[in-house]
Amino acid sequence: MSDHHVYKKVEVVGSSRNSIDDAINNAITECSKSIKNVEWFEVVETRGHVEDGKVGHYQVVLKVGFRIEGS
Amino acid sequence: MSDHHVYKKVEVVGSSRNSIDDAINNAITECSKSIKNVEWFEVVETRGHVEDGKVGHYQVVLKVGFRIEGS
Amino acid sequence: MSDHHVYKKVEVVGSSRNSIDDAINNAITECSKSIKNVEWFEVVETRGHVEDGKVGHYQVVLKVGFRIEGS
Amino acid sequence: MSDHHVYKKVEVVGSSRNSIDDAINNAITECSKSIKNVEWFEVVETRGHVEDGKVGHYQVVLKVGFRIEGS
Amino acid sequence: MSDHHVYKKVEVVGSSRNSIDDAINNAITECSKSIKNVEWFEVVETRGHVEDGKVGHYQVVLKVGFRIEGS
Amino acid sequence: MSDHHVYKKVEVVGSSRNSIDDAINNAITECSKSIKNVEWFEVVETRGHVEDGKVGHYQVVLKVGFRIEGS
Amino acid sequence: MSDHHVYKKVEVVGSSRNSIDDAINNAITECSKSIKNVEWFEVVETRGHVEDGKVGHYQVVLKVGFRIEGS
Amino acid sequence: MSDHHVYKKVEVVGSSRNSIDDAINNAITECSKSIKNVEWFEVVETRGHVEDGKVGHYQVVLKVGFRIEGS
Amino acid sequence: MSDHHVYKKVEVVGSSRNSIDDAINNAITECSKSIKNVEWFEVVETRGHVEDGKVGHYQVVLKVGFRIEGS
Amino acid sequence: MSDHHVYKKVEVVGSSRNSIDDAINNAITECSKSIKNVEWFEVVETRGHVEDGKVGHYQVVLKVGFRIEGS
Amino acid sequence: MSDHHVYKKVEVVGSSRNSIDDAINNAITECSKSIKNVEWFEVVETRGHVEDGKVGHYQVVLKVGFRIEGS
Amino acid sequence: MSDHHVYKKVEVVGSSRNSIDDAINNAITECSKSIKNVEWFEVVETRGHVEDGKVGHYQVVLKVGFRIEGS
Repeated sequence: MSDHHVYKKVEVVGSSRNSIDDAINNAITECSKSIKNVEWFEVVETRGHVEDGKVGHYQVVLKVGFRIEGS
Repeated sequence: MSDHHVYKKVEVVGSSRNSIDDAINNAITECSKSIKNVEWFEVVETRGHVEDGKVGHYQVVLKVGFRIEGS
Repeated sequence: MSDHHVYKKVEVVGSSRNSIDDAINNAITECSKSIKNVEWFEVVETRGHVEDGKVGHYQVVLKVGFRIEGS
Repeated sequence: MSDHHVYKKVEVVGSSRNSIDDAINNAITECSKSIKNVEWFEVVETRGHVEDGKVGHYQVVLKVGFRIEGS
Repeated sequence: MSDHHVYKKVEVVGSSRNSIDDAINNAITECSKSIKNVEWFEVVETRGHVEDGKVGHYQVVLKVGFRIEGS
Repeated sequence: MSDHHVYKKVEVVGSSRNSIDDAINNAITECSKSIKNVEWFEVVETRGHVEDGKVGHYQVVLKVGFRIEGS
Repeated sequence: MSDHHVYKKVEVVGSSRNSIDDAINNAITECSKSIKNVEWFEVVETRGHVEDGKVGHYQVVLKVGFRIEGS
Repeated sequence: MSDHHVYKKVEVVGSSRNSIDDAINNAITECSKSIKNVEWFEVVETRGHVEDGKVGHYQVVLKVGFRIEGS
Repeated sequence: MSDHHVYKKVEVVGSSRNSIDDAINNAITECSKSIKNVEWFEVVETRGHVEDGKVGHYQVVLKVGFRIEGS
Repeated sequence: MSDHHVYKKVEVVGSSRNSIDDAINNAITECSKSIKNVEWFEVVETRGHVEDGKVGHYQVVLKVGFRIEGS
Repeated sequence: MSDHHVYKKVEVVGSSRNSIDDAINNAITECSKSIKNVEWFEVVETRGHVEDGKVGHYQVVLKVGFRIEGS
Repeated sequence: MSDHHVYKKVEVVGSSRNSIDDAINNAITECSKSIKNVEWFEVVETRGHVEDGKVGHYQVVLKVGFRIEGS
């Protein structure tokens, strides 16, 4: 095993009708289906849609970091 | 009807004693009283007051976007 | 008493297994143990750790502002 | 007449199926219907929708500056 | 009366032949003619015109915050 | 079908000898060859090469957003 | 004595009823009461309170740099 | 000839009544009259004047890079 | 005469023992000795030296814009 | 062959116990194992871990650009 | 022991006649003399003095993060 | 001699096959050939070319500051 690692970051957008926290969780759950070794996230932007004068969806743009297998 | 729209963004600050999500909702509800066609929001800044060593109010600065009537 | 005040800002990172709001509260509570006159906070960055494909910890970087005693 | 003026800036989003230049013009034209003394614009953001693998709409976020009447 | 308020921010540009401080004051004075409950300002940008090799006008771009009546 | 979606953003650079609009279109066309559900783009940076004292190529850095299949 | 120094920066907010320059001076004077070797400052943000349609207080956020004793 | 080069960047503002692309070209053409080895440009800011409710001039702020002769 | 102009911006740092306004003026005066057609300035950064617990010099970083002769 | 190319940028984090330069090289080497036509990199962020009062690892966040095959 | 920690970040400037890496190390070493539990650093700015046409000192501005004892 | 100075900043790009430090030195050395009184530099951007899966050249964009003769 190497004494140094290389990580990759991908940018994803999670959404939720309920809360900002939930939008983050939805994005992390989706990423973890196809990516191994997900280790951290960074919130880049928070926004949302408005429907009938209320928040319809929270949308959170995240950078998600994972270790490259074998590095 | 035109095949293109023009939108306007206004900057508002919502506050809440309970949560960040709630501060956003309070701002959106207030905006929707006087503005039609509110479609989206973008969080610009999150801050708050501290009272007696605890969060007193969450304050969220938002840009709120709406379609200009007739455009 | 002076007619003007001087404030100081310190940068802290709060964390929580539960929510962003909770991470902010944990940081404010910790600051208030050692600092008097804490008056406001500003969120600088929101991030977190991922464990087993879910959010393990939310981490919120805050600037916390307090009035300098006697100013 | 005063020897100094005060200006206001509003943030608008113009769109066009044709080009970035056109999206700017659509926003300026729309603003000029309801605002007098429009003097300048600043592009804040350029984005767009994709339809069928092609640019569907260009969207340009502008700050539009105008002199406040009587200032 | 509500236990939370909603604020709005507008962006204005004040100018003065004399000083930066004066340009800020000119903008605040003008805003207060048409807006109630103005509570704070934030300097966004400082610039100016040059005439005959000297500063002709200072121009200060401000965000001006006010509480929405009834919120 | 879920009531929330997850999107991904990738960063690409399109180029064109003709115009900025064209450089954007070239990038979107190329992305759509290998990515499904491309929905929007955001311009991050505009630059170019100079050849013989004229613009040789316009280069536009874009973030391109698409919905993750099945989310 | 070492051939290299280490400096520290702290973030403070000075205020004044009179001017921006004065708000900076008030912050520097306050810092110098408790910190030795203050060498420079950087303005981070300029803002203020409005009272009765006029500037009530100028508030200037500064980073203040000083050499760490013995470094 | 050295195995490394040194480049310089200058900041210019091109303008045009016709288009953003044209404003860029006008700036590059003007620079190339007095500067040798111009190799690239980066758009820093896009703005313009409004005349009679329409775009009067597009103004594009560019950084223009060139190799220092002999480096 | 052309119907479009090209401008150049240079970055300078003015200083003054008295005030921020004065530091700006010193920079503009110095620029005007060697540059024709100076038209505007933009403040990029404000900072200063501290001497004996007081502001020793205000230093203001400016971009200074001028029209290129003959353009 | 086309007269224009499309490039993609990915964000990676290289680390090294030795130096910043080395952390960059480790990231580039790792990327080149799975990506063809890597042409350039841009440093986005430099940080690191501290162990026993010394730098344990340098971590450099890079954007790595490569030409899309066939474009 | 708590299941969440609170961290603090301080801003320091390290310098060195030799290299950027060395300037970082000098800052970390100095911080570790007076602060326990230093865990990470983030480079904020890199600059330096020039003497006799060569780099005299590299100066690196860092944020240094440490866990608050007992949190 | 005046009690205040005026400085100018120019933006240059140094490159090196060896290291970031070396790229900075190459830029400073080149600047000092044609500019007197060079006093400091600020790193604006670090990037590079990749050749055969390795760093080919480090490229560092610097602002270089010098005192204007006679100011």
